[in-house]
Amino acid sequence: MTVRNVESFIAGAWLAPDSSAREIRDAVTGSVMARAGRSSVDASALIDHATGVGAPALQAMTFHDRARMLKALALYLQERKEVLYDLSFSTGATQKDHLIDVDGGIGTMLVIASKGRREMPDGHVYVDGGVEQLSRSGSFVGQHVCTPLQGVAVHINAFNFPVWGMLEKLAPTLLAGMPAIVKPATTTCYVTEACVRMLVESGILPDGALQLVTGGLGDLLDHLGPQDVVSFTGSAETAFGLRSAPNLLRNSVRFVAEQDSLNASILGPDAVAGTPEFDLFVTEVHREMTTKAGQKCTAIRRIIAPQAQVDAVLAAVSDRLRETVIGDPRDPATRMGPLVSDAQRRDVLDKCATLATEAERVFGDPDTFDVHGADARNGAFLLPMLYHCADPDAARHVHETEAFGPVATVMGYRDLSHAIALVNRGLGSLVASVITHDPDVAREMVMGAGACHGRLYFNNRDSMAEATGHGSPLPHMVHGGPGRAGGGEELGGVRGVLHYMQRTAVQGSPNILSAVTGQWVPGATTRQGPAHPFRRNFDDVQIGETLHTAEREVTLEDIEHFADFTGDTFYAHMDDDAAKRNPFFPGRVAHGYLLLSFAAGLFVDPDEGPVLANTGLDSLRFQKPVSAGDRIKVQLTVRQKTRRTESYGEVRWHVILRNQDDAPVAEYELLTMNAYADPR
Amino acid sequence: MTVRNVESFIAGAWLAPDSSAREIRDAVTGSVMARAGRSSVDASALIDHATGVGAPALQAMTFHDRARMLKALALYLQERKEVLYDLSFSTGATQKDHLIDVDGGIGTMLVIASKGRREMPDGHVYVDGGVEQLSRSGSFVGQHVCTPLQGVAVHINAFNFPVWGMLEKLAPTLLAGMPAIVKPATTTCYVTEACVRMLVESGILPDGALQLVTGGLGDLLDHLGPQDVVSFTGSAETAFGLRSAPNLLRNSVRFVAEQDSLNASILGPDAVAGTPEFDLFVTEVHREMTTKAGQKCTAIRRIIAPQAQVDAVLAAVSDRLRETVIGDPRDPATRMGPLVSDAQRRDVLDKCATLATEAERVFGDPDTFDVHGADARNGAFLLPMLYHCADPDAARHVHETEAFGPVATVMGYRDLSHAIALVNRGLGSLVASVITHDPDVAREMVMGAGACHGRLYFNNRDSMAEATGHGSPLPHMVHGGPGRAGGGEELGGVRGVLHYMQRTAVQGSPNILSAVTGQWVPGATTRQGPAHPFRRNFDDVQIGETLHTAEREVTLEDIEHFADFTGDTFYAHMDDDAAKRNPFFPGRVAHGYLLLSFAAGLFVDPDEGPVLANTGLDSLRFQKPVSAGDRIKVQLTVRQKTRRTESYGEVRWHVILRNQDDAPVAEYELLTMNAYADPR
Repeated sequence: MTVRNVESFIAGAWLAPDSSAREIRDAVTGSVMARAGRSSVDASALIDHATGVGAPALQAMTFHDRARMLKALALYLQERKEVLYDLSFSTGATQKDHLIDVDGGIGTMLVIASKGRREMPDGHVYVDGGVEQLSRSGSFVGQHVCTPLQGVAVHINAFNFPVWGMLEKLAPTLLAGMPAIVKPATTTCYVTEACVRMLVESGILPDGALQLVTGGLGDLLDHLGPQDVVSFTGSAETAFGLRSAPNLLRNSVRFVAEQDSLNASILGPDAVAGTPEFDLFVTEVHREMTTKAGQKCTAIRRIIAPQAQVDAVLAAVSDRLRETVIGDPRDPATRMGPLVSDAQRRDVLDKCATLATEAERVFGDPDTFDVHGADARNGAFLLPMLYHCADPDAARHVHETEAFGPVATVMGYRDLSHAIALVNRGLGSLVASVITHDPDVAREMVMGAGACHGRLYFNNRDSMAEATGHGSPLPHMVHGGPGRAGGGEELGGVRGVLHYMQRTAVQGSPNILSAVTGQWVPGATTRQGPAHPFRRNFDDVQIGETLHTAEREVTLEDIEHFADFTGDTFYAHMDDDAAKRNPFFPGRVAHGYLLLSFAAGLFVDPDEGPVLANTGLDSLRFQKPVSAGDRIKVQLTVRQKTRRTESYGEVRWHVILRNQDDAPVAEYELLTMNAYADPR
Repeated sequence: MTVRNVESFIAGAWLAPDSSAREIRDAVTGSVMARAGRSSVDASALIDHATGVGAPALQAMTFHDRARMLKALALYLQERKEVLYDLSFSTGATQKDHLIDVDGGIGTMLVIASKGRREMPDGHVYVDGGVEQLSRSGSFVGQHVCTPLQGVAVHINAFNFPVWGMLEKLAPTLLAGMPAIVKPATTTCYVTEACVRMLVESGILPDGALQLVTGGLGDLLDHLGPQDVVSFTGSAETAFGLRSAPNLLRNSVRFVAEQDSLNASILGPDAVAGTPEFDLFVTEVHREMTTKAGQKCTAIRRIIAPQAQVDAVLAAVSDRLRETVIGDPRDPATRMGPLVSDAQRRDVLDKCATLATEAERVFGDPDTFDVHGADARNGAFLLPMLYHCADPDAARHVHETEAFGPVATVMGYRDLSHAIALVNRGLGSLVASVITHDPDVAREMVMGAGACHGRLYFNNRDSMAEATGHGSPLPHMVHGGPGRAGGGEELGGVRGVLHYMQRTAVQGSPNILSAVTGQWVPGATTRQGPAHPFRRNFDDVQIGETLHTAEREVTLEDIEHFADFTGDTFYAHMDDDAAKRNPFFPGRVAHGYLLLSFAAGLFVDPDEGPVLANTGLDSLRFQKPVSAGDRIKVQLTVRQKTRRTESYGEVRWHVILRNQDDAPVAEYELLTMNAYADPR
């Protein structure tokens, strides 16, 4: 077997490890299979290349440009993932584990790309929340916007997910418009390196957007400033050391930490043996204990069950663990491969010794177990071990000491408040799961334990066919947690992108805010276009372009006819006395839908043209009743334009209905799809 | 003059200062007017009282309960603010300064209260963002929710705003449902103490919700854990010391810092002498230099003007400064009172000496100036000083050394990108202002400088009549900034409340999520009520209660009639060939507004009853066209209920229109106001 030299990618060049490089062993065979590391890393070269070359290129792109880039990168990897699978077996991972790491990473990138297209504008400024009215007449207003940080994001990743761990941080970073420096954990850095090579070779990434440092970071952290971000995944101890760096503290450098935590799963009081929930619980626990040989930051370490169910849980989980085939991860029959390294195995056994001071081992003797298709003496094999802690209130280690492997402890609870107290003993975790069919249990759990957990995963007979698993962080949902889990957040759709952007409160006149956001802001200048806006294609129609319609009187006959035609004979439209008794109306009033319909009649240009369809309507508020004899007119203004497909884009219109006294009677936003000047 | 003993309010008792207490001098007369401090503070007593007594009481209230409490507290202070004015003169503040501190603090509390009522639910769980579809058939979905942290918020405040500084942190904390321990700066703690006495004596606050520690915090920070928050306002040096505390770092304790920063104001390239913007710029600069004698974390320290305008700016600002009356703050003729203390005055002069190594003083000789109505030898008086830095690119101190008093430096820029480079030399600030009438300047500034500033304030002739001033943080907008400004955020409406809550990603079945959020989630169980939901008052109608209507056929006659009646003869409804050429439609289709109107006709119960009005509609999306001959029907489900007034509340309905094949054709949320069972 040839020994692979794992290189770094710095300032556009691949650099081989130097003589100080460390040897990396295959987790299965124990033989040296790679070398990684450099004795010196030039921090300034890394940072300058990122901020001087990568950042300007990324910032020149819009959010949609960057989202398309992410999608292209993900599809590029998708076609080459077999290479990553092949390499990953050496980390001890099985094919099922690869699906989490490789396919999960690619899938995460695709979801972030899709969110970027759907939830962010096709521009350079992300608008956060609505316009704030800061003045009586509206000449001075506020708006929060987000722009990319001007520095570099340093990603310090854990060994367990060499692909997902990189991509789940990289996708939001690039979408934000920020370049990244990736530092993988050395033990599995050869997989990350292979993935980075693919990303670079794709030619899709701008120069400087991504650099890779294998081995140590040198003094890079001492060179970071207020526009940089450090995002760390790994142990609490390492995180503590990094976040204590005076340079980071002095410059308020953002430090996002996602630390291993003592995650728990709770069997609901209702989920006794014999229920579908009990079986589901055993399945989830077994999966979390054995996937990646338990080397997952979200794995279940604490199994919290009603006291009366403890024996049943111990028995059922032990039965499953007994059937678990341990062996060569390349063998499809293998359920669980070795740990990543012998050092990791020794660490797990050390932690088990600590747990054993408070808990009894009920399954798994590390000195006696079968390994299939591999030599147990060479690889970092271990079997799953299940502990039982009889007095979890008095215990400390079972809540705070993590054996980062296939190890978990069962403990009993008296009632739900006791279960909540126990799950919160972890002092903050990434995820806690609750297997219950009782909505009241869920509500109490959120109120009592929500504050201590970044994610609460509920599962039961209704959701089990589609549930994604206790241990799976999803790109849609926040990943991270308070306290022991690091106090950080990642992912969560656009939320995760904002970690790499600065939110700025912008105040000014409506015209200034319109220029800044690229959206028309109420109160900003409007202008008449050269033609009816429905005659103008997507490219030609301008932000702020406005149609003022003629007036139309709303008659009592209209109201009665509309009621008769639609069947909406609500008393406020039909019965003057009843309407007068209502706190909102001066007497009989026109239907809101009549007003919307008449408004469309006023502003629509009927002939075939670039407007293809009215696809929706947002934030309609009726502000003042319209009585028979009132006259309404419409102001229709182009608020925002977003390209959607290759042939048409979405136009968001701001619509104001006013009466004969110019008082607004209704306001809303209308969505249409408009053809491009040159649809493909 | 009697010497006031400033007490602490700990665990429900007022405690007098002990023998270690420090003397506090009147800023105007220099005489000792108060004593504050205790040699030992029992951290456990403070924390236990907050988490054991205050937290449960606050958590039992809904967001609306707490918002009403904040409003009542603010109105209580409003009636007693003269007492706070009287006391505040001793800090050197003028009546105008009191308006910022006292009235500004009360106003902030009122805005946060109002946002709590309007933007948060009348429940215990804040829902963040929409439901995330995590599965194909929708049996497993996600939702982010926020619940109050279970610890205590420790507020460490600056001397300059003893009332606002407390209330702007306290209001979001209490609204979140978290108790607070307030530690004011000792120099002005007597004003804060007086305000806390009012809040306590009001009887409005639950026990344990607010404690006050005057003097030192002792070892309180060493006792904090992952559920606690430290929110600090003050100098960068003090912040660095606090945030480096190993206990805070080890437990990932949230640390929100708002530090003094070298805020700048930029005169736009268009805003040359003679324009309204030039005069506005001079007015804003003068106000920021002299308000609170320049002791504001948002004050303008750097005045960045086009090179050709530098002389004009120096002259105009100097003229204004020359007219500034310095003296006894109690005298209405006084524009600027003394600094808060002699120590502060000496510190400012020290920093001026540093600035003088890079900049020339063009206005203000600290050895020669007039003080009106007070003895300059006793009080901490200083006059405003204006510097000019001729080479701001080479300089460092003018960008990084802050004289926290009435001191600013003028510097010239060559072009806009140079101005952006200079404003970013502050390495992060709370606010930068730009006085320009040119929207392109605003856009470039946001793209180039947004990432370095927590707030960008634009002002010009259009907004100057209503603009709130460079230096005023508003409760609606985020206050805080990156890097030198501390990297934190406060205020910003609900955003500021979330700093005291944990965001948790909740996953589960729609029924579980409905129970957790108190809102019906699509896919959750629906049930028929005992009567038509329009016959049911606000209290009786239940979340999930659903009406399924009969079907109604949409005929070609309906479409033609609707077009004729409303005037909406858009080609997709009228011309089969044209509609077929459109990518959205199979041929002529019904108007969207026709569907909405027919839907109302199907679900409305016409008779007078508890439903008072349809007030709005949100998130309407048309999903599938409806052709002549199709039949539509409606599902109307109660999604959310929110009490609004003393006689009625808002019901949010989820509406789904389906066709004869049960395929959804439109979906939206409808708002009605419904009377209570027992309206007052």
